[in-house]
Amino acid sequence: MTAFDDLMAFQRETSALGQIAGRLGWDQETVMPRGAAPQRAEEMAAIESVLHARRSDPRVAEWLDQADPQDEVGKAQIREIRRSFERTVKVPADLAKAIARVTSSAQGTWAQARADEDVAAFLPVLQEVVALKREEGAALAQGGDVYDAMVEDYEPYTTGTQIADIFDQMRPRLVALRAAVLDRPVPQSLTGTFDELTQMRLSQKLATTFGYDLNTGRVDKAVHPFSSGSGLDVRITTRTSETDPFNCFYSTIHEVGHAAYEQGIDQAYALTPLGSGVSMGVHESQSRIYENQLGRSRAFTGWLFAQMTAAFGDFGISDADAFYATVNGVHNGYIRTEADEVQYNLHIMLRFDLERALMAGDLQVSDLEAAWNDRFKADFGYAVDKPSNGCLQDVHWSVGLFGYFPTYALGNVYAGCLYQTLRAALPDLDTQLAQGDTSGATGWLRENLQQYGGLYAPRDIITRASGVEPGPEPLMAYLEDKFGEIYRL
Amino acid sequence: MTAFDDLMAFQRETSALGQIAGRLGWDQETVMPRGAAPQRAEEMAAIESVLHARRSDPRVAEWLDQADPQDEVGKAQIREIRRSFERTVKVPADLAKAIARVTSSAQGTWAQARADEDVAAFLPVLQEVVALKREEGAALAQGGDVYDAMVEDYEPYTTGTQIADIFDQMRPRLVALRAAVLDRPVPQSLTGTFDELTQMRLSQKLATTFGYDLNTGRVDKAVHPFSSGSGLDVRITTRTSETDPFNCFYSTIHEVGHAAYEQGIDQAYALTPLGSGVSMGVHESQSRIYENQLGRSRAFTGWLFAQMTAAFGDFGISDADAFYATVNGVHNGYIRTEADEVQYNLHIMLRFDLERALMAGDLQVSDLEAAWNDRFKADFGYAVDKPSNGCLQDVHWSVGLFGYFPTYALGNVYAGCLYQTLRAALPDLDTQLAQGDTSGATGWLRENLQQYGGLYAPRDIITRASGVEPGPEPLMAYLEDKFGEIYRL
Repeated sequence: MTAFDDLMAFQRETSALGQIAGRLGWDQETVMPRGAAPQRAEEMAAIESVLHARRSDPRVAEWLDQADPQDEVGKAQIREIRRSFERTVKVPADLAKAIARVTSSAQGTWAQARADEDVAAFLPVLQEVVALKREEGAALAQGGDVYDAMVEDYEPYTTGTQIADIFDQMRPRLVALRAAVLDRPVPQSLTGTFDELTQMRLSQKLATTFGYDLNTGRVDKAVHPFSSGSGLDVRITTRTSETDPFNCFYSTIHEVGHAAYEQGIDQAYALTPLGSGVSMGVHESQSRIYENQLGRSRAFTGWLFAQMTAAFGDFGISDADAFYATVNGVHNGYIRTEADEVQYNLHIMLRFDLERALMAGDLQVSDLEAAWNDRFKADFGYAVDKPSNGCLQDVHWSVGLFGYFPTYALGNVYAGCLYQTLRAALPDLDTQLAQGDTSGATGWLRENLQQYGGLYAPRDIITRASGVEPGPEPLMAYLEDKFGEIYRL
Repeated sequence: MTAFDDLMAFQRETSALGQIAGRLGWDQETVMPRGAAPQRAEEMAAIESVLHARRSDPRVAEWLDQADPQDEVGKAQIREIRRSFERTVKVPADLAKAIARVTSSAQGTWAQARADEDVAAFLPVLQEVVALKREEGAALAQGGDVYDAMVEDYEPYTTGTQIADIFDQMRPRLVALRAAVLDRPVPQSLTGTFDELTQMRLSQKLATTFGYDLNTGRVDKAVHPFSSGSGLDVRITTRTSETDPFNCFYSTIHEVGHAAYEQGIDQAYALTPLGSGVSMGVHESQSRIYENQLGRSRAFTGWLFAQMTAAFGDFGISDADAFYATVNGVHNGYIRTEADEVQYNLHIMLRFDLERALMAGDLQVSDLEAAWNDRFKADFGYAVDKPSNGCLQDVHWSVGLFGYFPTYALGNVYAGCLYQTLRAALPDLDTQLAQGDTSGATGWLRENLQQYGGLYAPRDIITRASGVEPGPEPLMAYLEDKFGEIYRL
């Protein structure tokens, strides 16, 4: 056994334990008895403690010193193991514990403050979280940019400046597109109710239509849909609403995008650092291209309209063209998670700029609400009516997730690049999608991106797959074309 | 922090990890995607490796040396932690690994041999298992009795000789009772089919009727019903058969007995060695007393007959007395898991005597089939027709479970002792059960036995709760009375 072999064997066991921790999360959101919550918190803490000890195990440093693989895959493994090890040991144990303790209580405080519409009740604990995260960022950055160090946790090898360059180009065009679209007549609305069991059956059909392998996965219901697990056990969840079947269907397709990425990774990387999606942004590129560029295309919605008509009968939409407009309806709204393709990225850019300023010390927590409300008015044209529709709407900051928000919009940018190239490579794409056949598109994504897992850095895999450096132009052109046509701009 | 505090904090984390490992098992048998099996094997191995390292951690030895609690609970914690630690370190790591490797492949060989009715195909690997387990037993016994050392894993503080004393008294009376009963006319049979969803609904009702708390538990389906977990997350499974609803209902009540024991333990012991049932035998005493002495009583079956009639309409049983006889029907059969109260213990005694002889070296693996068939003929009066109905029917020996079988019958013996005392303490028991009210009986069991978890040794807790030393007389008197009356002997 070489040092590399020893390291990889140790790492494999760590990855297996990480899979177990992830599945506990799945269990908690789907099947766990309610009364088990306090015990589950101790179980999660126990396995996180084991994982932390392994990630910072001194033997890893020794193996890293001695291991010297010569092949591309071996070098990538070492790169990722070193990155994780150095990240873990840079943060003092006391600081990591303080963050865990404060964010755990802050989440509860946030939920109560949101229910009470009481920003002031949340600010003191948010102040603590921000201070601790800035301290953590400084420990990670070691003289570099604090926010960049945080982005690294979710989108490695990517800086805040790179992201800002992209977002700043997009913002004025999105504001203009949004205003133009909202000046036009609204599409038709769904009428009636939609049986929830029938939704779940069609949801399973959509999942397999998009290439999800139920032999190594399953579909359950959860309050907030998510995908969970890597390798041979990748589970998704969705939700149902009697009056809004799109919520179920597009949540399913979105999560299938995440899950198909995990299922598509070369099994040779299973239970190694390369055996999961490489970043949140690249992950989101897959969920978004499945959900939007493919799932909300004119061609695919034509097929879906027929499926829904067969399942539910008449539901108030006159024909497939009208259905396409309804699926892609743009409406005013305060809530990020309910936003359409046109407005979603504006919600993200708002958060990105604010959290970056918070971490840089350029914005004080006490000024956060005013800054949020000003920016919202500037981009969306109307005022925030209550904190739960404004700066209290997301859980992220309460649990210390700074640097995470931009990956949602980066995913859209990446999806734009990939889709431009995918369309050129598949001249028959629309014909296939119109028949409910996504295999050409999903096969292209698997072949050109998904199979590589963590082998290449996020920007590198997007560049390799799409042939262009990640930038906003393909996404913006796609959005302006699509919504220009639907809304006859 | 004293050494005792340090030890208990460490132990608490170990117990939490143990709960996680148990829940992985639940997941595997209920919801896991089929294709996940190979990855799951690695995940299980990873967490078992963590647990093994913690159970034999040298710091535990140091803490055990220094800890000196003065209270009864603290002393019991130390007693159980020491027992587990010494057990773990006595077995050489190489031997433990060899056993894990051989039993893992032996289980597959056994399943194939059973399907092929080919004893000879199984014997070589069984020979290996027996040799390794005898080696392990010798390491554990350190000059003492090898089989006793194995029993200790499942029924601590109990010897093979103590068990043999009890079983030897029971055997002739059971053989005689069985022969007398089978000489009488058979009870009425169920007719028709029973909707499986309705079975699951009534199953949930039965579970709560017997005091199972669904706030900290849940009921799912599994091929082989089981109960899983301790403390605030205790899950049960059951199964359904369209033609045999008793399978579902009595599996449920049986597993609720196990689960109610875990749920009934004082929460002060949660995530400690005292926070789970004290032994397999005491556990089985709870599942059996719920299932048989309570669930198959004349009083309770009267209530169940009304429930089933309301749910399913007429199913070929004329009245509640006939229903009681049907529920308690005694029929010829080869299979332990399908056996009734009269014959079940005979199946166990056969296995107990054979496995004890194997471990003592008094029986050779090559002679096992003949010994099994001779003994079966002697006790049951007819010959085994094929190996899957004989010595290949159970998985236990293939996976190295020697010393486990007797705990099933010990559970019945313990249940007999407890029931005798419970009846005397609750003069209105039959009136309550006839109304579907088990709270008097289950409350008595919680108060007198379940709450104590692992505080007292198995024989001690039975003695404390029932007021008598564990012995066969109460069970035998109960069986002879009950079946004497049903079959008019």
